[in-house]
Amino acid sequence: MTAAADRYSDLVATLRENALFASCGNLLNWDEQTYMPHKGAAHRAEQLALLAGLSHERATDPRLGEVLAALEATGAGRADDESAQGSVVREARRAYDRAVKLPRRLVEEMSRTATLSQQAWIEARKKQDFPAFRPWLEKVVALKREEAAAVAPSGGVLYDALLDEYEPGASAAEIAEVFAGLRRELVPLVSAIRDSGRSPDASLLTRNYPVAAQRKFCVAAAEAIGFDFESGRLDEAAHPFCNGIGPGDCRMTTRYDAAHFPGAFFGTLHEAGHGIYEQGLDAAGFGTAPGTYCSLGIHESQSRLWENFVGRSQAFWTHFYPQAQVAFPEALTGVPLAGFHAAINDVRPSWIRVESDEVTYNLHIMLRFELEQALISGDLAPAELPGAWNGAFQRDFGMTPANDALGCLQDIHWSMGLLGYFPTYTLGNLCAAQLFESADRELGGLSEQFSRGEFRPLKAWLNETIHRRGRQYSPSRLIELVTSRPLSAEALLRHLRNRFAPLYGLAQS
Amino acid sequence: MTAAADRYSDLVATLRENALFASCGNLLNWDEQTYMPHKGAAHRAEQLALLAGLSHERATDPRLGEVLAALEATGAGRADDESAQGSVVREARRAYDRAVKLPRRLVEEMSRTATLSQQAWIEARKKQDFPAFRPWLEKVVALKREEAAAVAPSGGVLYDALLDEYEPGASAAEIAEVFAGLRRELVPLVSAIRDSGRSPDASLLTRNYPVAAQRKFCVAAAEAIGFDFESGRLDEAAHPFCNGIGPGDCRMTTRYDAAHFPGAFFGTLHEAGHGIYEQGLDAAGFGTAPGTYCSLGIHESQSRLWENFVGRSQAFWTHFYPQAQVAFPEALTGVPLAGFHAAINDVRPSWIRVESDEVTYNLHIMLRFELEQALISGDLAPAELPGAWNGAFQRDFGMTPANDALGCLQDIHWSMGLLGYFPTYTLGNLCAAQLFESADRELGGLSEQFSRGEFRPLKAWLNETIHRRGRQYSPSRLIELVTSRPLSAEALLRHLRNRFAPLYGLAQS
Repeated sequence: MTAAADRYSDLVATLRENALFASCGNLLNWDEQTYMPHKGAAHRAEQLALLAGLSHERATDPRLGEVLAALEATGAGRADDESAQGSVVREARRAYDRAVKLPRRLVEEMSRTATLSQQAWIEARKKQDFPAFRPWLEKVVALKREEAAAVAPSGGVLYDALLDEYEPGASAAEIAEVFAGLRRELVPLVSAIRDSGRSPDASLLTRNYPVAAQRKFCVAAAEAIGFDFESGRLDEAAHPFCNGIGPGDCRMTTRYDAAHFPGAFFGTLHEAGHGIYEQGLDAAGFGTAPGTYCSLGIHESQSRLWENFVGRSQAFWTHFYPQAQVAFPEALTGVPLAGFHAAINDVRPSWIRVESDEVTYNLHIMLRFELEQALISGDLAPAELPGAWNGAFQRDFGMTPANDALGCLQDIHWSMGLLGYFPTYTLGNLCAAQLFESADRELGGLSEQFSRGEFRPLKAWLNETIHRRGRQYSPSRLIELVTSRPLSAEALLRHLRNRFAPLYGLAQS
Repeated sequence: MTAAADRYSDLVATLRENALFASCGNLLNWDEQTYMPHKGAAHRAEQLALLAGLSHERATDPRLGEVLAALEATGAGRADDESAQGSVVREARRAYDRAVKLPRRLVEEMSRTATLSQQAWIEARKKQDFPAFRPWLEKVVALKREEAAAVAPSGGVLYDALLDEYEPGASAAEIAEVFAGLRRELVPLVSAIRDSGRSPDASLLTRNYPVAAQRKFCVAAAEAIGFDFESGRLDEAAHPFCNGIGPGDCRMTTRYDAAHFPGAFFGTLHEAGHGIYEQGLDAAGFGTAPGTYCSLGIHESQSRLWENFVGRSQAFWTHFYPQAQVAFPEALTGVPLAGFHAAINDVRPSWIRVESDEVTYNLHIMLRFELEQALISGDLAPAELPGAWNGAFQRDFGMTPANDALGCLQDIHWSMGLLGYFPTYTLGNLCAAQLFESADRELGGLSEQFSRGEFRPLKAWLNETIHRRGRQYSPSRLIELVTSRPLSAEALLRHLRNRFAPLYGLAQS
């Protein structure tokens, strides 16, 4: 072997071991949200802080910096930064440069705070008690501002420094522009739907759906679309999530409510979309760019694609509705497919993002994007969040949450320090729409396949075009490569008009 | 602060952080046996091997050796090795001296092998397929022999080097002598019971006990004797165990069989006994001797005490039997308390150790003690284990297991590398008997208390005499301190005669 090949092997071995080490923390995080007894939180916070500190020590090891510099001197990760090997070097450099700017103390403190703050959030949400959560939010925001200041280039936007962790290369300004264009079309669409005079009977989704039957139905659907339960699990948690522990082990969660069918079901399809992505990553590339998810926007495109483009389609329910009627006889006997399909596509302003319809969903995201930018810039004090939330909600949705559990306490993200994360959800919707159009064109007649219960061709296409490529390309490059177009809002808007114009009797432009 | 006080604080901080680090691996172990998806085993093995290697690196850090030497130079851990601080130094020295004799490669290999081997054991046991497990057993035994050779003093007994890890200061020769004395009394007791002509109707324990009702009843009983479910959990696993993750977080498992009441119930009481010990450790001493369990023999004394001395007593069921009849109406309606109590104290040779009666239980242990000594000395090849097991079982129990799942594949221990562990179970029985006599004398009338459902005085007594002392004393010293007598088989034999003579109409000597 040449010296460069030796160094490359050395780099890969180091990155793999670092990822293996970090994956231990993933399991502790999963457990914290699923099975950890209440009084174990303080110990868990110490465990995770120690692991975070040690992970950071590994990620900033000067030896790693030397190996990277030596490899780059031979051209790796620069000229050929989209080759399999080049992308390994490129992404290792990105992560290293970010990590060395952060003091270990800050990393540990953020980790410790995230654990305790999540527990406080769970309690505060249950009790609709923002004041109990406020000190934690203040601490989290202060730590994230410190992190952003450490990482941002001189004169750079603080928020962008956080966003870049989740969506490499993105900026708040660019995203704001795309979002503004989307909003311009969404607001009249929401109005047109409201003014259509049609209103599906969504109350049939809040009849009695016994939890045991829901659980079985959710697992069957996740399995049908391609989630492998020998390599993963579905458990319950206060906030649904998906956590890829490592090759062969992917954990997702949902939450059941016997009086609300869509929550657990579409939540499960959503998390299964994330899980199918994780399970489709190349295990041999674990810890390196080709075996790592591309970005959170791309991750979200996978979850939203299965949840909405597949899961809320007429074709999907042509296959699944007879099974649903068997599973939930009390709720669905005598309800025609068309009525059910209209109900799960009911568009109306609602409090909870994860249970909102496809049209208003993006307005929920824009609201969070706006508020978290203000929290990070310092324009909004955490103590003022409920007021700011409710004001913005009134402005965008024409109604004010009756309590903070329906408002600013609904999401887990800020309690965990995930600021700069929310816009990736809407980016995910845009990507999903563009990918789905391409898949439909290339595979021909996805609807027909779905109505026969065939979901594997779509899964295989995503495996090949997205999952197997990992982080070899940047998210914008990947989308362009797969769909032959740069990312825009057009495909999503086309999808929304195509789906909702017939349901609400709107004129199609 | 003096330099010595500084060094002591330094030592404590290091030990605490090392224990915190090791506790992350505990959670991964727990998950492996409860919720890990099947295909996650290979990744889990790599995670645990890495953590084991890093734990070992911490445990053998030369800086730790220097701090210890400097503290010992001031007399700590030698002259006053039973003071709180002295015991910290004494036990840190013991662990350090053992760890530095082991190469990191061996530690990692043992860890990796244990994970994969456990998975192989689960499958092999299910399929009654010893040949599938044999290569794993061979690898485990080879690694444990290597470990013993590395740790044993020159000319020392290999087995003792393994035993010492679990029962500090014990030797196989001493244990064999105690066991021989016990066996001399047990064999005639088993014969007398067999020849008594009495045989309780144990079939009532294999009627229909719905699993959901068992689960509820088990949790209620564990709670009643003092297990805190806000600081712990009860889950299901192939082999029941208890794993103290850290302060505020203790996980136990059991396994349910709708056609066998005692398995899950006494298994739960047993694990709850371990759990109450873990929950009773001083959290402030976490990672150091005063906050660590004393030995596995003492640990087992706590589980066996609650399982048998409490849980199989007439008084316990005077309180719980009416609840049991409500929980299991199909099985227990019309069955008098006396018949139920006789059934759960049915003494007869049986295949499965964890489901065996109090009298024959120790014969199961002696058999394993004999075989594992032969495996470690090299007198018994792993391939010959089934034959050796069945031969010894025929000799001791007068019957031969129909398959290896009822024989040498029944226990998880050897698959995990736990060789030298089994004798601590019988040591635990001896300790439990002696402790229970002392508690009964000091607290006065435990039976009366149990029959009123009062278990807290006993728990408080154990908290104070055993749990809060952690590993400040050696196990033999602790027993002498609490019971004012050295450990012997007398109390256990008294207990067995007192319990079984009336049940089987034997003459009491």
